[in-house]
Amino acid sequence: MHSEFELIARYFTPAPPGPEAGVALGVGDDCTLLAPTPGRRLAVSVDTSVAGVHFPDEAPAEAIGHRALAVSLSDLAAMGARARWCLMALTLAEADDAWLEGFSRGFRALCEASGTALVGGDVTRGATAIGVTVMGEVDPRVALTRGGARAGDLIAVTGTLGGGAGGLALWQRGERDPAHPLLVRYLRPLPRLAAGEALLGLATAAIDVSDGLLADLGHVLEASGVGAELDRDALPLAEGLVAALGEEPARQAALGGGDDYELLLTLPAERLDEARGRLAALDLPLTAIGRITEAPGVVGVEAGALGGWQHFQGLPDRGGQP
Amino acid sequence: MHSEFELIARYFTPAPPGPEAGVALGVGDDCTLLAPTPGRRLAVSVDTSVAGVHFPDEAPAEAIGHRALAVSLSDLAAMGARARWCLMALTLAEADDAWLEGFSRGFRALCEASGTALVGGDVTRGATAIGVTVMGEVDPRVALTRGGARAGDLIAVTGTLGGGAGGLALWQRGERDPAHPLLVRYLRPLPRLAAGEALLGLATAAIDVSDGLLADLGHVLEASGVGAELDRDALPLAEGLVAALGEEPARQAALGGGDDYELLLTLPAERLDEARGRLAALDLPLTAIGRITEAPGVVGVEAGALGGWQHFQGLPDRGGQP
Repeated sequence: MHSEFELIARYFTPAPPGPEAGVALGVGDDCTLLAPTPGRRLAVSVDTSVAGVHFPDEAPAEAIGHRALAVSLSDLAAMGARARWCLMALTLAEADDAWLEGFSRGFRALCEASGTALVGGDVTRGATAIGVTVMGEVDPRVALTRGGARAGDLIAVTGTLGGGAGGLALWQRGERDPAHPLLVRYLRPLPRLAAGEALLGLATAAIDVSDGLLADLGHVLEASGVGAELDRDALPLAEGLVAALGEEPARQAALGGGDDYELLLTLPAERLDEARGRLAALDLPLTAIGRITEAPGVVGVEAGALGGWQHFQGLPDRGGQP
Repeated sequence: MHSEFELIARYFTPAPPGPEAGVALGVGDDCTLLAPTPGRRLAVSVDTSVAGVHFPDEAPAEAIGHRALAVSLSDLAAMGARARWCLMALTLAEADDAWLEGFSRGFRALCEASGTALVGGDVTRGATAIGVTVMGEVDPRVALTRGGARAGDLIAVTGTLGGGAGGLALWQRGERDPAHPLLVRYLRPLPRLAAGEALLGLATAAIDVSDGLLADLGHVLEASGVGAELDRDALPLAEGLVAALGEEPARQAALGGGDDYELLLTLPAERLDEARGRLAALDLPLTAIGRITEAPGVVGVEAGALGGWQHFQGLPDRGGQP
């Protein structure tokens, strides 16, 4: 009855049971049994990537596999959680061997690189979409949330901004060189898991930059009941972004474009050097881009600066979280 | 940017944080933080329900919401796990208020009835599909698996069989009375969570009947390295099934039809009365339908008996698990 999709399922080697992976009973029964670490909280999140909405249909299969997992892991990174397990719900319009081989290669490689065990899944037929549930673990006393920013804290961001939006813009103009730094940023974003863990105890609040810097900063400000003053000129722009888009669109991409999957955080000014030191060990820059204020709202970005910015043009609306 | 889908997200009231629900940090941050029970294993599973594949597009929205959660919870039931949490990835072709209201009502009602807290989700635009990840907890020493059946054990099934397939057949013939017992079985299956827990320590193996009795029995036989002798005349047929399909097709539906979400289990003959007693307290019959044999294969069902049976006709292939 299920032969075709059971075949597909074989592309996804699930984690073998073992105490190291925290898998007490592996895939192949009705459920997988996991062994959470005593004293830790379980951090969970789910994200769906829909072909033609969240990524171009014709994107490389390996990048689609990588990216579907990366966007979910990015939520764990933003809490400072350590990635442990994931489940994948793959819906496919058709079974194409080459596509599946590439997709599973990209997905599995990021599983290995991030220490995430694939512990369950479901393969169904329908319009192509990938739902990935991730589970991580974190010490509840230091977990990074959106609600801890305090007036006077610095606002900082890991890595560079605008690369996701810039890469998408290039893709839409026909750029297909997989090694182009902006395409790498858009198609193969790296969830900042190690950075999130390194910032535990230093950052007062954190979020990942998925919807765009201003939108995600807005979530932090709202949850923390504060405002912000931004230094537009301090934004760390992605490599090649100004050359590709021009100076002003590049800055707009950094402020309003999404899909960067960097960490946006707040921290006391006197902890900046320590945070930079910890991230330097990961070869990741940390740039201060503003300061938290008591007064609500955001100062330093002219209104309407983002009017011209657009996400992936398949559909303007891409989703929301209950 | 996300206004439309943030609106949609409001239909799904997530669980408030609280020690009873095991929710340390509720929805609204990058992740939800859960507090697993010390000493228990975490049982996890994911299932995707695709419109036009796993349920008819025009099925009542409330039934679609109920059913999407039920099929996932059924996997927890088959392990004897207690349902704790779920995450929902909802992909929608369009935002229709009436549909969403009904869908969320069906989903939430089963959350409440089963003690499952909705702790995360994602709402995206695309072809309508619902991915539900469920998490439950179970004592690893007694968890029900597929691999414990021993020669001489009885084979038994909870409730009745063939109702899922019979209800689908009626739906396809145009029956729309939501109170018709077969339509109730197909559209609003009840995951046997309480039964699964009640059978802990009694059943030697268990699985839920989702693909059809013979297919699911096959999984148990394979995992346990045994065979089976079935008593075709003992199959407990769903109410109204013979009247709707005729005697022989009814029996075929019970053997080969899917979507019943009853529990198929094996147990020592001398424990049958005790198991029946425990399930009687849940108002659920338990019927012995055969015996486990040392010789592999299944005896008692003529070959080809299932040749005429078909699942939901949108697509013959419905999925598989990695």
